[in-house]
Amino acid sequence: MIIVMSPGASQPAIDRVVGEIERMGCAPHLSQGKFRTVIGAMGEETNVDVSHLASLDGVEKVVPIMKPYKLASREFHEDDSVVEIGGKSTPAVKVGGPHAMCIAGPCAVENEEMLNKIARHVRDGGATVLRGGAFKPRTSPYSFQGHGETALKWMRACGDELGMPICTEVMDTRQVELIERYTDSFQIGARNMQNFDLLREVGKTRKPVVLKRGLAATVKDWLLSAEYVLSQGNRGVILCERGIKTFEDSIRYTMDISSVPVVRNWSHLPIIVDPSHAAGKRDYVSALALAGMAAGAHGIIVEVHYNPAEAQCDGPQALLPEMFKELMVQLRIIASVHKREFAEAGEAVNA
Amino acid sequence: MIIVMSPGASQPAIDRVVGEIERMGCAPHLSQGKFRTVIGAMGEETNVDVSHLASLDGVEKVVPIMKPYKLASREFHEDDSVVEIGGKSTPAVKVGGPHAMCIAGPCAVENEEMLNKIARHVRDGGATVLRGGAFKPRTSPYSFQGHGETALKWMRACGDELGMPICTEVMDTRQVELIERYTDSFQIGARNMQNFDLLREVGKTRKPVVLKRGLAATVKDWLLSAEYVLSQGNRGVILCERGIKTFEDSIRYTMDISSVPVVRNWSHLPIIVDPSHAAGKRDYVSALALAGMAAGAHGIIVEVHYNPAEAQCDGPQALLPEMFKELMVQLRIIASVHKREFAEAGEAVNA
Amino acid sequence: MIIVMSPGASQPAIDRVVGEIERMGCAPHLSQGKFRTVIGAMGEETNVDVSHLASLDGVEKVVPIMKPYKLASREFHEDDSVVEIGGKSTPAVKVGGPHAMCIAGPCAVENEEMLNKIARHVRDGGATVLRGGAFKPRTSPYSFQGHGETALKWMRACGDELGMPICTEVMDTRQVELIERYTDSFQIGARNMQNFDLLREVGKTRKPVVLKRGLAATVKDWLLSAEYVLSQGNRGVILCERGIKTFEDSIRYTMDISSVPVVRNWSHLPIIVDPSHAAGKRDYVSALALAGMAAGAHGIIVEVHYNPAEAQCDGPQALLPEMFKELMVQLRIIASVHKREFAEAGEAVNA
Amino acid sequence: MIIVMSPGASQPAIDRVVGEIERMGCAPHLSQGKFRTVIGAMGEETNVDVSHLASLDGVEKVVPIMKPYKLASREFHEDDSVVEIGGKSTPAVKVGGPHAMCIAGPCAVENEEMLNKIARHVRDGGATVLRGGAFKPRTSPYSFQGHGETALKWMRACGDELGMPICTEVMDTRQVELIERYTDSFQIGARNMQNFDLLREVGKTRKPVVLKRGLAATVKDWLLSAEYVLSQGNRGVILCERGIKTFEDSIRYTMDISSVPVVRNWSHLPIIVDPSHAAGKRDYVSALALAGMAAGAHGIIVEVHYNPAEAQCDGPQALLPEMFKELMVQLRIIASVHKREFAEAGEAVNA
Repeated sequence: MIIVMSPGASQPAIDRVVGEIERMGCAPHLSQGKFRTVIGAMGEETNVDVSHLASLDGVEKVVPIMKPYKLASREFHEDDSVVEIGGKSTPAVKVGGPHAMCIAGPCAVENEEMLNKIARHVRDGGATVLRGGAFKPRTSPYSFQGHGETALKWMRACGDELGMPICTEVMDTRQVELIERYTDSFQIGARNMQNFDLLREVGKTRKPVVLKRGLAATVKDWLLSAEYVLSQGNRGVILCERGIKTFEDSIRYTMDISSVPVVRNWSHLPIIVDPSHAAGKRDYVSALALAGMAAGAHGIIVEVHYNPAEAQCDGPQALLPEMFKELMVQLRIIASVHKREFAEAGEAVNA
Repeated sequence: MIIVMSPGASQPAIDRVVGEIERMGCAPHLSQGKFRTVIGAMGEETNVDVSHLASLDGVEKVVPIMKPYKLASREFHEDDSVVEIGGKSTPAVKVGGPHAMCIAGPCAVENEEMLNKIARHVRDGGATVLRGGAFKPRTSPYSFQGHGETALKWMRACGDELGMPICTEVMDTRQVELIERYTDSFQIGARNMQNFDLLREVGKTRKPVVLKRGLAATVKDWLLSAEYVLSQGNRGVILCERGIKTFEDSIRYTMDISSVPVVRNWSHLPIIVDPSHAAGKRDYVSALALAGMAAGAHGIIVEVHYNPAEAQCDGPQALLPEMFKELMVQLRIIASVHKREFAEAGEAVNA
Repeated sequence: MIIVMSPGASQPAIDRVVGEIERMGCAPHLSQGKFRTVIGAMGEETNVDVSHLASLDGVEKVVPIMKPYKLASREFHEDDSVVEIGGKSTPAVKVGGPHAMCIAGPCAVENEEMLNKIARHVRDGGATVLRGGAFKPRTSPYSFQGHGETALKWMRACGDELGMPICTEVMDTRQVELIERYTDSFQIGARNMQNFDLLREVGKTRKPVVLKRGLAATVKDWLLSAEYVLSQGNRGVILCERGIKTFEDSIRYTMDISSVPVVRNWSHLPIIVDPSHAAGKRDYVSALALAGMAAGAHGIIVEVHYNPAEAQCDGPQALLPEMFKELMVQLRIIASVHKREFAEAGEAVNA
Repeated sequence: MIIVMSPGASQPAIDRVVGEIERMGCAPHLSQGKFRTVIGAMGEETNVDVSHLASLDGVEKVVPIMKPYKLASREFHEDDSVVEIGGKSTPAVKVGGPHAMCIAGPCAVENEEMLNKIARHVRDGGATVLRGGAFKPRTSPYSFQGHGETALKWMRACGDELGMPICTEVMDTRQVELIERYTDSFQIGARNMQNFDLLREVGKTRKPVVLKRGLAATVKDWLLSAEYVLSQGNRGVILCERGIKTFEDSIRYTMDISSVPVVRNWSHLPIIVDPSHAAGKRDYVSALALAGMAAGAHGIIVEVHYNPAEAQCDGPQALLPEMFKELMVQLRIIASVHKREFAEAGEAVNA
């Protein structure tokens, strides 16, 4: 950590900072320039309260050097982590390292028949995990909010029948226990990325967590949220880039494609992309999915519907089954550039 | 609502859209241009699913005309709403309309003594509501997380003694019942602005809610979140601008000062500003507080500490008591420009 | 265009708007709702002054439906445009449609020897156009500003020798004539994307223009800038996505990957990506280049240096020659997904 | 400057960095931590090429400590600068320090009569400098582009008659000489903030420059652009905040109110705000103007029109004369909070 003192900082102010650094167990290094003094603090930065140092008299700013997260960092775990979804009543699906994969399904689970129909479509296309919303976060209180436990039951039955582990969103600490009973993996939505109580609760389970990036979250914020889950003992975090809020209005959210190589550099955790929510519009979904894999992602999570006009939510962004199939063919070529392979549906079943 | 068809949209596609508009109880108006057809749908837009129409074949985009919120809108309630905080064991404090006011206190409640000391400072300066964090949302799982119920007890006792109603943050649906027992008003933090279950829970109580704007939320999103609370029957929503995420890095968040006149135009709800979290640095807090009142806000919420270097969180942004007093003098002058008045501490006690 | 009247707009105000729409040669369509009147104006929107209508009494907002640009739009020119760079003293290189291509070279031209050396490296890797800066835009007045005409001469000689047309940045209207004498194509930098006089001047030449997207420009703004060039009779515009300004600070600029499919949808103009300026850091350049091609771009422009530590500008983002070669191998695979082909250096020479 | 080495950086890599720092005339300070080495470089940072150091092997990142601008910095010039506009054929108007002031007039100068009429309105309200566009930057090539030299003549005559110095925009290096002949001060628009050749040309004149902040420019970028002007010997730079590009779409640009105290802290240059271009809508202009002065700005620049519906550009944002007068009354109260005073029109004439 580097503490930059104001141009006019007094000697007692400098001494106080040096004292605090020592009290925190770090070694201070002073550099006295013509205009100002700069103090380096070497040691375990995660024990240090940046905010406290920044509050001291005469301190202009504090520049952290080390990453504020530990368990999520590449330094902590040099090799890529491989997370497994499922493996109990379905085959296990591997995410991370040399494994490419696809999670697909409807936005919301509207009824059992449509779920089964879409699930078959996506399995045939090459998806190995089934997604679907039972509890839906909606910006308007007047929109459809999901079928809850009933939808969870349909998903469990459908996943078991087709040999696909399932993934569904959890929005409230009070739902964790219920959803855990049915699902193979949790999804934390963008708007809950800094719902710290919820992160802690899913961190206490042992089911993988697909952690979507918040709309205003830096990569550092995102990895700190992953750290919340990891710090409770759950090592199954899968990061998911789904677009950030920018001034551009030609598309719903701006997919931050650079977050893929940045996460790959800073962290060992697997990262996938969600082109559906970023695009908000069917026509742009495939381009973003291809870009995500080309940038080095381990997979995608995508929404598919055979009749989007009947979808109760986010119909405009759902891929049609034939578009999905074509996309999967292209994704396999792109994954090969990074020497990643998609498991065959068949392989998955027997794995 | 306006439905813009693609240049090549077929007649059956146009007919289908017209049919759907009628099915929703709206009246369709066709305009056939040289390149494309545009369809207006007049009627109650809140009943209409934009997403559904946008999913139909041949639809290029759907442009909503009416606001997606009702109860929060100026159309629904023409006059400024005035929300009252407290009034049971303390005097009631009015927020909105011609009333200017200030909520002040420490970031986190660290111990009873410091709370009492800071509370006296802010009351003497002219604050009429006492703030303080019992449960703290922290981006890092390794930071101090608050003293919980103990801190709530200290706040209740301190507020009652000084005649100041209190305000504290709620982060989890499971805390609502506990916090409601102690507090006069809830605060929903920026990161929970779209925690819809939490909004619903505080909406079921009858205590006012200070709803901070999310870091990536448009004013429209924010009013939709207010609508969640209002739709449960709780009419005591106070909006709080606290800065948004932008590319500017000279300050922690960019206070969107224009949100103040926009909210005043679109909604009847009171709006206050939080200069402390926007600035992140003591030296800039007063300028932002003054700007907020000048732009038309009904008040401010601000952090004060007599010894910021000892604060367990956000010390660098806490105003010193003397800075706070000077600020309040300036705020009174600025409030007068908008014909708003701060209640005297004395007045408040006897109100 | 849709004109939304305020809730309380008077009949004379409505009549005035209708009159103005007719005066502009458009046909007005009124829709009278419960709360407000909405007026559609069908016709040639490019003749209409949105700002004028928005100024009229009782108008709440004006929503344009048609694109504000013409010559740049897909409606104006349905098929992909193919732009040719060079063809006089060098082979012509095709950009757009089924042609994939790469522009590469140093950031600034520092001396003749390094230029020749880098040019050979990039030609061997598969680049067909040579880039290099003679006049450099620098955020600090104290940084190296380029070698001017001398550098142009070196570039011309080098391009001619290797059979590579050249591309160099123009920053000032007064430089257009000089640079035109040497170069095969102009580059307009991000900071000059809305330097309208400069756009007009290069529009008067008949050399292709690589138009970088401004850091705060929407895709619509960008196409309007292309329109400035096109409207002067120069049809050789190549759009170049190079990242936008967002809150994310892990990388220099956020490459807006979605602009690629959006531009492909809205316009017939070729689009390439510049991963070097977006990334600002060598390690992330290849991932962004691959993502750009996967999203559907027609090519890339990339900086290469054999000894980045000696580069006079932007050394940290220059690819080493071996990294560049490996990238080109990967790009060929990805281009094949979109049925695009890179011309061989040999082909280009004999084309 | 702080150079952070990668975790695995070799000893020769560290030695190389140390050598380079010494070669630049700075003193290196090494701090060897458990995971990595951090090197401080004390000395004149403006001579140092950050980019070069960042290119060296084993360097993870370079953190500059000192400001990259000199002449614009508060360290260089401790007291507030006061810039004078006019003083030849009109009274001189002071900007900065204890002086509050207002520049007002139409967006574009449409004809002589309207200019004279508006000028009288704004002078009567309390404006002391007259603004008006002779050359207009327009995002569309099909919009009105200004009356050029004719408009400059009208402005000169009008300003001289009313005793108001004038301010007009320059967009192209080729216009500097012409405009200088007529005007008392230049305006550089947001889109030209990094048109470095233009900055240099106006820097060579001795007329003050109102430098608007770019839509994607940080405060640091902005001060670097000021440095371009200052470095040519022109000390009359007046900074002007006019809003930045963010995701918020309820208003045209987000006025970054915090830039006012930040600039006041980092620089001695005067700063004014432009509420008209930020708001884009008459109803929000006054709130932003008041906020700007409350935050500590030295003045405002605002557009006024007695018949906005006839304005050839930006009519919706023009204040009506009576709104302007009321605003000036409120601004005087707010300026008094910061002990700033507006000169009376009369005072100005006799000054």
